[in-house]
Amino acid sequence: MDRRRFLQLGAASPLLLGLGSVAGEARAQQRQPGNAGSSGNGKARNVIFLVSDGMSMGTLTAADQYLYWRDERHTHWIDLYMQRDLPVHRGLMDMSSRNAMVTDSAAAAASWGCGHRVNNGSVNIGPDDEEYPTILQIAREAGKATGLVTTTTVTHATPAGFGANVASRGQEADIAKQYYERGYDVILGGGNHYFDPERRDDGEDLYGKFEQAGHEIIRDRDALLALSDSDVGVLGTFSNWHLPYEIDRLHNEQSKQSVPTLAEMTDAALQRLNRIGDGFVLQVEGGRVDHAAHGNDLGGLLFDQLAFDDAIGVALAFQQEHPDTLVIITTDHGNANPGFQAGPDLGHGQFEKLSRFKGTGLTHIVPELNEEVSRDTIRDRFKETLELEISDRETDMIYDFVRGDYELPYHRTNHIRSLVAKVVANHLDFNWIGRSHSADYVELAATGPGAEQVGPFTKNTDLHQFMLKALGIEAVQEAANRRGVRVFA
Amino acid sequence: MDRRRFLQLGAASPLLLGLGSVAGEARAQQRQPGNAGSSGNGKARNVIFLVSDGMSMGTLTAADQYLYWRDERHTHWIDLYMQRDLPVHRGLMDMSSRNAMVTDSAAAAASWGCGHRVNNGSVNIGPDDEEYPTILQIAREAGKATGLVTTTTVTHATPAGFGANVASRGQEADIAKQYYERGYDVILGGGNHYFDPERRDDGEDLYGKFEQAGHEIIRDRDALLALSDSDVGVLGTFSNWHLPYEIDRLHNEQSKQSVPTLAEMTDAALQRLNRIGDGFVLQVEGGRVDHAAHGNDLGGLLFDQLAFDDAIGVALAFQQEHPDTLVIITTDHGNANPGFQAGPDLGHGQFEKLSRFKGTGLTHIVPELNEEVSRDTIRDRFKETLELEISDRETDMIYDFVRGDYELPYHRTNHIRSLVAKVVANHLDFNWIGRSHSADYVELAATGPGAEQVGPFTKNTDLHQFMLKALGIEAVQEAANRRGVRVFA
Ligand SMILES: [Zn+2]
Ligand SMILES: [Zn+2]
Repeated sequence: MDRRRFLQLGAASPLLLGLGSVAGEARAQQRQPGNAGSSGNGKARNVIFLVSDGMSMGTLTAADQYLYWRDERHTHWIDLYMQRDLPVHRGLMDMSSRNAMVTDSAAAAASWGCGHRVNNGSVNIGPDDEEYPTILQIAREAGKATGLVTTTTVTHATPAGFGANVASRGQEADIAKQYYERGYDVILGGGNHYFDPERRDDGEDLYGKFEQAGHEIIRDRDALLALSDSDVGVLGTFSNWHLPYEIDRLHNEQSKQSVPTLAEMTDAALQRLNRIGDGFVLQVEGGRVDHAAHGNDLGGLLFDQLAFDDAIGVALAFQQEHPDTLVIITTDHGNANPGFQAGPDLGHGQFEKLSRFKGTGLTHIVPELNEEVSRDTIRDRFKETLELEISDRETDMIYDFVRGDYELPYHRTNHIRSLVAKVVANHLDFNWIGRSHSADYVELAATGPGAEQVGPFTKNTDLHQFMLKALGIEAVQEAANRRGVRVFA
Repeated sequence: MDRRRFLQLGAASPLLLGLGSVAGEARAQQRQPGNAGSSGNGKARNVIFLVSDGMSMGTLTAADQYLYWRDERHTHWIDLYMQRDLPVHRGLMDMSSRNAMVTDSAAAAASWGCGHRVNNGSVNIGPDDEEYPTILQIAREAGKATGLVTTTTVTHATPAGFGANVASRGQEADIAKQYYERGYDVILGGGNHYFDPERRDDGEDLYGKFEQAGHEIIRDRDALLALSDSDVGVLGTFSNWHLPYEIDRLHNEQSKQSVPTLAEMTDAALQRLNRIGDGFVLQVEGGRVDHAAHGNDLGGLLFDQLAFDDAIGVALAFQQEHPDTLVIITTDHGNANPGFQAGPDLGHGQFEKLSRFKGTGLTHIVPELNEEVSRDTIRDRFKETLELEISDRETDMIYDFVRGDYELPYHRTNHIRSLVAKVVANHLDFNWIGRSHSADYVELAATGPGAEQVGPFTKNTDLHQFMLKALGIEAVQEAANRRGVRVFA
């Protein structure tokens, strides 16, 4: 391990906005575990920020209701609300971005990450190309360990919003490089594509560089579960792109063995981060809830939301042992506002059907639906993947749609994915308003020291300040102000 | 006025479950204003319970965002959340009924009204035909004045859930009669049909009976606004059936003059109730938000939600002057989970279009869309009602649909109302998942004495107990228990 070397690299980066060059050596010392240094004023030593990406209220509800039917218990999220002895603060949050009522994930995560509303698609970059310092950089300055865990590429918009500055969220190769330059400690998720020298356009060997700087590099679930109790950083990528949807992972032996769950990654990250630095800031994202919503896929949505909820369970268990941990649980925006519309038998009939799904339609049905597809294949795909016997009328609609002989009236649902979803809706009464993010105010919960700052209604950018205040690292801002650097405004 | 006579009638009703016959005389005395009697233990003298019927999260959000665009202020509901000095308690609420995950309005209101989950469609009647005492009866027993205000028929499911016992919500004529027998003080809304002897099947003159018992009868907005400051009851019906949608009322001179707003009715009810009895329980319903959602009508939904919000403003203003008032604000279930999906210019383009709507499509477009309709008429109706220039493709889809030559894939949206909504969605990016209630957990807010009982997650039936506790009238239950009557369990 060579933590010093890594920290100096971080300090040398021009992206650290002049803070690094002053504070580099001091930081190296502050980041020793047990050094109460910078967090002296804060009540929270750690922050765990959990995001279910693109979760409408119906998503949270359906996951809870389904789980209650299946396991006779509530989700950790709702259970947290029911425990009157554990103070939880919750409210609605307005996620508008600088230029849009309906935010994208980049602007949403940036609002938390840097405390500014930026334009959709940009990551912690202001309208005049300002690079706003991010929460992970600031936390690192203050001696905290830093972590990002997600089911998407680790360089995707939401994790990037906590630690990167790029004009466009598509610059994932640049984001990966910034993670290295900024020396983040634990990075777990998908996205081998942006680290592997044979896949990167610039041929840079980011794995090699991370390794030189002292990180362990892991590439599969076994390695994650076998992580030692050392205190070096970890970079783990478990697929080239995003991790599979949870329901697809569960029904594919190879994925099941090679790809960890979000809860497993979260647990590994917490154990490791807790041994690095003077507390930590960790973001955990259930990133494919959003993708399932974009794709109008009920199985994808629900089981990824439940996998996210398992990660909440891990975070809350950690908090029980480490009460000086602020846990924030939220989503960055609604998506497609799905919901169950009927449940004559308390939903049991619908849940029974859902429990027989064997994968996402996105993976196992939609790719087959081209203009050559036969009626038999259409029927078979629904039967094999979802155990649904679809009607002749439904089969015909899909058959005609892929041949351009049928269309849906609303442009956002005039897509084969929406049509598949509407066929599913006929059987389970779960439908979607479209395939895009929605403007809805979102659910926000917090528990632990600093959570009391969360009131009934929160502006997205306020969460940035809440975290800093909880951690007691406003001092970073003051130091930056003395040097004329706008750290947060 | 003959309050005594009314109270005795109430006492004679078998529906009062044996409480009346014992307590009749005592109640007559308790209900004198200023008599602190039964509410001695309670911190709240009054309860105002406001329900936006069928409000999904997107409905609450869209109304707030539109209002902010139009008037640069938030809705009273969201503004309440933003005022950190006024303690507001809020959470999610599970509205499941006894037999369904997705409740109807009758079972929903009954859960609050009697503290039991009943089957969908029934009003405070248990599975073995038990008649559960309702909050208005219990409050009346305790000397409180009682009121129901709504934009639907006053005998509709939601108000009935606070004061009636019928096997089926459709028994509106019976419900009207129960209101009389139980002597509720202020009843304002639609529903002349169920009071007028020439319209009632049984020919009963309920107006005459109410009048004999001392109530003022009013039939238009002028009479409402001119109400004296006496302390007799008031029965006001301002249409035969439901009141018009707010956007239709606003654009129709006759409706505008004859039909009061929900806020005006709420204000009148509060002034009057405050002079009757020892405090009061008032339910206020924005009942047609639900109807607009069933009909997928954006203009109907949004302006009725805003009209409901104005009533919240009236309630909160009353509470400011009378701090011993518990204000509860919620909805009984989601409906169609609508939402805006795009807002590239912070929604301004969409709001601009919405501001030009002149009525509901339900009233001004849909009735024209029969199998005889011409393409020109289709285009004209959209243009005249909504100022939208619809495309040839959109015109053709409607033209074909009404002739049976086009259909939508999901059975709940295979309806002309949904098709009209999807044409509107192409222009405003506001869409719906169907035409039915949804299973979503709903938003619940409370402020004032007793509000602290509302935690982050509430079971619908708990609200019944919260109200009784806030009012300090658990004593009613104890008295009933002594006589072996199950009042609430
Ligand atoms: Zn998205
Ligand atoms: Zn309804």
